[in-house]
Amino acid sequence: MENFLYKQPVPIDFGAGKVKQLPEILKKMNLNRGILISAPSMVRLGIAEEIKEQSEGRIVAIFSDIRPNPTVKNTDNCAQMIREHNCEFAIALGGGSIMDCAKVACFVAGTEHKTADYLSKKLPVTGTSIPLIAIPTTSGTASEITTVSVLTDEDRDVKAPLGSDIFYPVYALVDPELTLSCPPHVTAASGLDVLAHSLEAFYGKKHQPLTDLPAERAASLVFKHLLTAYHEPDNIEARAKMSEASVTAGMAFNLTQTAAAHACSYPLTQEFHIPHGEACAFTLPSFWKINSKGPEAERLEAFSQRLGFENAEELANQIDAMKKEMGLRMTLHDVGVGTEDDLDRLVEGSFSPNMYNNPVDMTKESLKEMYKAL
Amino acid sequence: MENFLYKQPVPIDFGAGKVKQLPEILKKMNLNRGILISAPSMVRLGIAEEIKEQSEGRIVAIFSDIRPNPTVKNTDNCAQMIREHNCEFAIALGGGSIMDCAKVACFVAGTEHKTADYLSKKLPVTGTSIPLIAIPTTSGTASEITTVSVLTDEDRDVKAPLGSDIFYPVYALVDPELTLSCPPHVTAASGLDVLAHSLEAFYGKKHQPLTDLPAERAASLVFKHLLTAYHEPDNIEARAKMSEASVTAGMAFNLTQTAAAHACSYPLTQEFHIPHGEACAFTLPSFWKINSKGPEAERLEAFSQRLGFENAEELANQIDAMKKEMGLRMTLHDVGVGTEDDLDRLVEGSFSPNMYNNPVDMTKESLKEMYKAL
Repeated sequence: MENFLYKQPVPIDFGAGKVKQLPEILKKMNLNRGILISAPSMVRLGIAEEIKEQSEGRIVAIFSDIRPNPTVKNTDNCAQMIREHNCEFAIALGGGSIMDCAKVACFVAGTEHKTADYLSKKLPVTGTSIPLIAIPTTSGTASEITTVSVLTDEDRDVKAPLGSDIFYPVYALVDPELTLSCPPHVTAASGLDVLAHSLEAFYGKKHQPLTDLPAERAASLVFKHLLTAYHEPDNIEARAKMSEASVTAGMAFNLTQTAAAHACSYPLTQEFHIPHGEACAFTLPSFWKINSKGPEAERLEAFSQRLGFENAEELANQIDAMKKEMGLRMTLHDVGVGTEDDLDRLVEGSFSPNMYNNPVDMTKESLKEMYKAL
Repeated sequence: MENFLYKQPVPIDFGAGKVKQLPEILKKMNLNRGILISAPSMVRLGIAEEIKEQSEGRIVAIFSDIRPNPTVKNTDNCAQMIREHNCEFAIALGGGSIMDCAKVACFVAGTEHKTADYLSKKLPVTGTSIPLIAIPTTSGTASEITTVSVLTDEDRDVKAPLGSDIFYPVYALVDPELTLSCPPHVTAASGLDVLAHSLEAFYGKKHQPLTDLPAERAASLVFKHLLTAYHEPDNIEARAKMSEASVTAGMAFNLTQTAAAHACSYPLTQEFHIPHGEACAFTLPSFWKINSKGPEAERLEAFSQRLGFENAEELANQIDAMKKEMGLRMTLHDVGVGTEDDLDRLVEGSFSPNMYNNPVDMTKESLKEMYKAL
């Protein structure tokens, strides 16, 4: 009999054009003096300024000095701006990097400390945070409804997750129109990140009945709509389905955590510079096949069939077919793993904690064998 | 393209024997002085006293003077006890009546007013409430995760719902062991109430992608496990599945509201004294058939097939078969509707607001025809 603890406190307000309702939402929530933490691209496109103008004076500052894979300097600077402007709330407008930065900045602003002290676990994350409204502009990380922020401390050469229930945004405003400007290679990578979140939430050891539901729904949406969103960037129906898939997958993996494919993605991103989603997709079909022969075999087989595949193997093959069609890297050679040394480094670097959330226990040997087949 | 607003802020802590962890949960939440609002049956069985004793002094009072279909006097008296004991939190231990009473008492205690003023809409429900931990002892209402309380004002001869986000419990502790003492006729009626919540959430006009998932899951659990829970009251596996079904259905209908079968249940309960769940089940198969020929035909047909039925009609027939097997009333004669006058009163009383949430618009004529076939 299964025990579980389910929670998902963030309201999800979903719809094309919904961002236009932001002024009303701020009014209703009685939020009067805030900062807009924005992706640089949203500033360039004029969307950030437009949102500020429409806020009727409620947004008093814009912060956008955030790099991809945000640093503790980014969060500290953002926190400083929150303090200087006495902001009582924040809005995050961007992809995972922006939302991850905003989540931590909203907390750090109320402390007298630096982010590095929390990332290094010198200090525990306790207390409160100013309320954050998260508005994703990509369909991928689902950071708008999760507790985690992944930050880089360049001084200490560390990239690590920082998580706390304090980081939950108070509101997720998911407007698929904001993803229309996403270029195809980002659509491809972030879309496969969503698929990885879904499949890993489903087969991960920490899965539970109430996360299985959104995991399956999200995977089904990706298989049906990702290629369309990739080939037709202006297809708002396909974009909406991918936005829905992203936030739905978030409801699952926020509680289950990710598993082996994500664990393998870290060295691929950090040492071989493969974008996060593409890096997750690199091993995702392999792990679906491996796991479909392990203790969760029955569940994975049934899942695959409910999604319209003949069996688990066919589902895995379809991921490869999608990767191929979207021009993603498929082989060790493609991702720049050329020597035995490279391969050993990759294997070595793949054993993050989420590797142990995989239903089939992986060893260095079995992992190396898996990589070699790629 | 679908827009939606999804929220479900109450954490769901689920598992057999979980109620034993209550002292730790109170400690973790730093809740130190509270009241236990308990079903009289839980007091009789000694469970209320046991919980109080195990609380290490955190529970300072027990209130259990609550009747089925609780009254505004019940909530006012409970609020008074909360004030007298300076309670900073409350625990509700019981079925829907107890949780409904507790939700409102926790709010009213912090005001200078009577419940009747809120139920009559003389005053709006605003402000805050002391935190409530809800522990259901039946599998039916899902009141532990919803915003609504249904109360009776005997002075004004009114039974009405009172709803507010302020009424959300802060924690739902769902322990299937507590339902083991549920007698078969209560298991039957409350189990079919869960099925009504699921099916009505699925076909109701306000359904959305993220409520369709729990609605389908909950219905599937009821079809698989209700008869076992009915025939084998001590079968903890079946009880657990029904507890899971109940809270899962709540995640759906809390947002979608209920529809026609619930609307028809109100006069059946108030004027013909049929228990709530049995009253909902009375018209549920009829509405499933009617709605499977309306604008949602395709969705209902596909839903029925995913649940293993040949078609929508077969799903409806299975509800009737379950009702028959559990000895529930099937015909107008069974429920005491004997004359044309009775029937007209029943039709007249069936048009509550949720009747208009049904996908097929019902008229007095079509409703009367439907009833006549029963």
